[in-house]
Amino acid sequence: MSRTRGRTFGPERLGRVPEPTLITSPANPRVKALGTLRRRRVREEQGRTLVEGLEELELSLDSGVVPRELYFCPELMGATARASGLVDRVGRLGTELVQLSRAAFEKAAYREGPDGFLAVVDTVERRCADLDVPDDALLLVCQGVEKPGNLGAMLRTADAAGVDAVVAADPVTDWGNPNTVRASKGTVFSVQVASDTTQAVQAWLAGRGIPLVAATPDTDTEHTDVDWTGAVAVAVGAEKTGLTPEVISAADRRVRIPMVGRADSLNVATSAAIILYEAVRQRRGR
Amino acid sequence: MSRTRGRTFGPERLGRVPEPTLITSPANPRVKALGTLRRRRVREEQGRTLVEGLEELELSLDSGVVPRELYFCPELMGATARASGLVDRVGRLGTELVQLSRAAFEKAAYREGPDGFLAVVDTVERRCADLDVPDDALLLVCQGVEKPGNLGAMLRTADAAGVDAVVAADPVTDWGNPNTVRASKGTVFSVQVASDTTQAVQAWLAGRGIPLVAATPDTDTEHTDVDWTGAVAVAVGAEKTGLTPEVISAADRRVRIPMVGRADSLNVATSAAIILYEAVRQRRGR
Repeated sequence: MSRTRGRTFGPERLGRVPEPTLITSPANPRVKALGTLRRRRVREEQGRTLVEGLEELELSLDSGVVPRELYFCPELMGATARASGLVDRVGRLGTELVQLSRAAFEKAAYREGPDGFLAVVDTVERRCADLDVPDDALLLVCQGVEKPGNLGAMLRTADAAGVDAVVAADPVTDWGNPNTVRASKGTVFSVQVASDTTQAVQAWLAGRGIPLVAATPDTDTEHTDVDWTGAVAVAVGAEKTGLTPEVISAADRRVRIPMVGRADSLNVATSAAIILYEAVRQRRGR
Repeated sequence: MSRTRGRTFGPERLGRVPEPTLITSPANPRVKALGTLRRRRVREEQGRTLVEGLEELELSLDSGVVPRELYFCPELMGATARASGLVDRVGRLGTELVQLSRAAFEKAAYREGPDGFLAVVDTVERRCADLDVPDDALLLVCQGVEKPGNLGAMLRTADAAGVDAVVAADPVTDWGNPNTVRASKGTVFSVQVASDTTQAVQAWLAGRGIPLVAATPDTDTEHTDVDWTGAVAVAVGAEKTGLTPEVISAADRRVRIPMVGRADSLNVATSAAIILYEAVRQRRGR
């Protein structure tokens, strides 16, 4: 058993929390299997991904996630009440607890300077057809967005704005990408997300009668000029190239955000936030 | 002289562009001096900072910056017309050109995987009293914001929204921080920026008769409920703690952004963008 700086985790301390499995060797097959979840193909095959870090794990639990497995390392966690309380909280959900030595944890973790918490959770990704959205849905479509940080930022905004679903069209990264999960601050588990081809997204919206509004600099219509009060999907495109010409021309409306400075100065996640909050303003009757 | 993959830079190729100084040793005192500009104290003493990378340098030139010195490394730049054109463009401004060996450049650069461009430029920071703003100014005050990425994102939004100045109150980082410069995509050179104590910022606004509107969750007034059409300053606070109680209570108005999800889901730069674009909407009469 690894030495710990703080308490040890055993049944006498944890009450009804199950006794953790103990792994000390970085060569343990389960430790190696965790590493494979850094690969998108493996995440998609297994339908699972990783949540690393105390804060991210707390936020995912707050969103109703029940992890399949929790890997923790007392030496890295430190002896805080918050850390030990989190192990107890996850244990009471029926999640398998696995205590790792520092060497094993550092092998499994994907962050530099890990804090001793790593959970395996089910991925949340679905196809458009599996989404459950209301008749007056407010949706965000992200086509080809590349940076996990931008996807995470858009999820945070979608959570705040009450967006009913965020759809990645022809995604460059999966929603289960650990960096997206991290940047989303847990909102990837509270907001409905889907991935699909651009064609499938367009067909699904058309079938539901939901108009698509494309964000593009190539229009005179400003984002404040359109009526956002009914069902509607806002589409934003990749960081460098924006939406594809096909989506822009097929969209029901095209809107631009007025800019007095450099044409490209707004980040894609910022643009999405400005448009979504104009929709929120109108829908709240302000 | 270092071997290059592409063209070499000499007077016969560059026309009126001055012949570059050549430095091959990473131990050269000028190379070492560049490294010291990574420290805030040195930047503030010298009134200078670094712009690294081809794209960032182009954006800063587009904003009217005339670098004091350009350090470039042909081996890292590659033999593109864009790269050699950029050296010529800077040289024609009268900037001193210094060609570095790969070893010397990698010593001087602060990025991993440097692209062969590093410029020394004057910092743009001033005090509130030195700002030049119109009677109907739209201002952004950032109190204690910590992350250079957030400061840079706010500058991009300020550039797009036509904000007259961005003021850092009790700043944790300086505007010349190379990561802020980078995240701002050059807009740190196109938007007026200042740094001051919170007290000095408040006194300056009061003296100019510019009302301060504090963004805080602890109010029932939404950001769409106030009149943004006159002179006004929006204040946002640090990532984790928000504005200080002193600023919130002393502010002329307090506004919150309506959120249906988690209370803390909006990032500080996103919050600033949503409020600033509500001001833009009203000021454009939409």
